[in-house]
Amino acid sequence: MAKRIITISREFGSGGHEIGMKLAEKLGIKCYDKELLELAAKESGLCEELFASQDEKPTNSFLYSLVMDTYSLGYTNSYVDMPINHKVFLAQFDAIKKLAERESCVIVGRCADYALEEFDNVLSVFIHADMDARIRRIARIYDLTDAKAKDLIKKTDKRRSSYYNYYSNKKWGAAESYNICLDSSLLGIDGTAKAIEQLVELKENITDKKL
Amino acid sequence: MAKRIITISREFGSGGHEIGMKLAEKLGIKCYDKELLELAAKESGLCEELFASQDEKPTNSFLYSLVMDTYSLGYTNSYVDMPINHKVFLAQFDAIKKLAERESCVIVGRCADYALEEFDNVLSVFIHADMDARIRRIARIYDLTDAKAKDLIKKTDKRRSSYYNYYSNKKWGAAESYNICLDSSLLGIDGTAKAIEQLVELKENITDKKL
Repeated sequence: MAKRIITISREFGSGGHEIGMKLAEKLGIKCYDKELLELAAKESGLCEELFASQDEKPTNSFLYSLVMDTYSLGYTNSYVDMPINHKVFLAQFDAIKKLAERESCVIVGRCADYALEEFDNVLSVFIHADMDARIRRIARIYDLTDAKAKDLIKKTDKRRSSYYNYYSNKKWGAAESYNICLDSSLLGIDGTAKAIEQLVELKENITDKKL
Repeated sequence: MAKRIITISREFGSGGHEIGMKLAEKLGIKCYDKELLELAAKESGLCEELFASQDEKPTNSFLYSLVMDTYSLGYTNSYVDMPINHKVFLAQFDAIKKLAERESCVIVGRCADYALEEFDNVLSVFIHADMDARIRRIARIYDLTDAKAKDLIKKTDKRRSSYYNYYSNKKWGAAESYNICLDSSLLGIDGTAKAIEQLVELKENITDKKL
């Protein structure tokens, strides 16, 4: 059977990570998130602590984007002279591709859908939920007031959105950036994982995709 | 059993209307699109031809938006003095609500998800597809060159997007505006209808929606 790769982008508080874990369990495959960072660190030789501190933090400087462009134009093919968060991004990018070539898996975050754009066995998913449900979840998990939970949600989503929009050629949270978008406040954690599992199976049994 | 209401918004060329028809057939319920316009026309007493010419065409004038605001502030409660496309929109809005109170159905387009925002038995769906697949579909159906098909797709989506963004409080094509967004070029017409049918059933069997 062909490998099953499912990428999950998610709004903070939507339960996207937990859904990814449940889905992986249902499918009998691994779910990569922080582990992926460690893998990338090991494979590139960069130390893990450094990676952890740079996790999904984009830079906004104009100078930096010039550097990015230089590298993407192929003026170099090593990581040696790059700024550190660009190195981290590229090392993760490589690690995600190697992972998808090697095994079936669920990958949460890290622009994995963009890294695997050329792979045809990928199902890319975006998980969102209504703000009230997200506030309740985050307030409960992190023991915060509703106001502080809302603030944390907005700031985290802003960071994720900036990271995705900066490094990919797509727009975070836009339906057309993903194969499937699901509202987890409609189906709950287990129900959303079940919905994705059903869609993975349906996709594999489709014989006529023509529109 | 509670009524099943499924609203479908769609990119032009994604097969959203055909998917809506197939889904309605699978669920044994009716699919409303142009028929809805006729219903709205009959119930409001406005003539049908007038409705047809105003179908999903927003106006962009500043003066018009002032008029809109006046009405939404409740300075009047009859259609008598309104500009015609606002009358058409409100008559459709009323018709969609009456329909959803009366019977299970699939409703395609017309901001139906927004009209039914307060209903808790609604599943709102957005159908999109990659541009190449949409160009092939539109070129085939309307016997156009690829360039002309692409042009028609862009113009139609722009019109649909303006209509939705103008009349609703949400953003057309943003994942968070809908419960589910699906890429029909991944599953095909029948596969996408099947996917929505599965999600309708899953939703009805969920006992724990908590995040």
